[in-house]
Amino acid sequence: MTIERDDNYFMQEALKEAQKAAIENEVPIGAVLVLNNKIVARSHNQTELLKDVTAHAEILVITGAASELGIKFFEDFTLYVTLEPCTMCAGALKWARIGKIVYATDDPKAGFSLYSKNIIHPKTIFEKGPGEKESKILLQNFFKLRRKSDTKY
Amino acid sequence: MTIERDDNYFMQEALKEAQKAAIENEVPIGAVLVLNNKIVARSHNQTELLKDVTAHAEILVITGAASELGIKFFEDFTLYVTLEPCTMCAGALKWARIGKIVYATDDPKAGFSLYSKNIIHPKTIFEKGPGEKESKILLQNFFKLRRKSDTKY
Repeated sequence: MTIERDDNYFMQEALKEAQKAAIENEVPIGAVLVLNNKIVARSHNQTELLKDVTAHAEILVITGAASELGIKFFEDFTLYVTLEPCTMCAGALKWARIGKIVYATDDPKAGFSLYSKNIIHPKTIFEKGPGEKESKILLQNFFKLRRKSDTKY
Repeated sequence: MTIERDDNYFMQEALKEAQKAAIENEVPIGAVLVLNNKIVARSHNQTELLKDVTAHAEILVITGAASELGIKFFEDFTLYVTLEPCTMCAGALKWARIGKIVYATDDPKAGFSLYSKNIIHPKTIFEKGPGEKESKILLQNFFKLRRKSDTKY
């Protein structure tokens, strides 16, 4: 038996990663990397835990998968991510030659497309997928709580 | 006694890193990170060694320094790098809030300024420094050799 997974399934998994980030007091962004209908790597933003501004979900997924799977390029892979990648991540995904990026919601503050849509690789398929509402709620709740906590302490 | 170092000195050190990269058969790009007239971190491109497309000199310097020095932001630091940063590195340097970037030569193929000059942080000083000729020669020789070797094997 083969279970066919779809964009909804994979984005829900990316959202689960984003939820983990929120619980860990990290900006709630998650990503999963998919090859042949299977998740091969998953991660979430860990900039606080790792004290590393580059530890975005996309970078962690790509570098982790490269290291674990022993590959450098990802032409046949799809990355599901809960927020539009920033310029750093879009640049990294270009070097990684990712085949396809599916994202849940635009990032009107730091999304790469604010600067240039050409930052990603010309062969990369880039499309908006499901999960916009869930991703936005996660992000909004996180920043609301953070603002409250900033006022308190 | 205090020895005052200048841009020439620091860029020569970045070029030494680029030379190390060339010897290791990596694309010859080097970087040093400077605080208060002292080099606090240095690195070179290691994408082949680490099998990691994100292992550019700038990323390695910033993440290494963050980890070793226990800091996240670099407002008071200057990065000397032998080639104009790509969009990934420019984005990472934005998140790291680097104070100043001095680079030796433009990257007409992948430099971030091809896409948007606003990718780096608005407060970051970005300027061309010394070392253009040396950096270009290193890169040209490397790619010449690589092309020859591609023909052979």
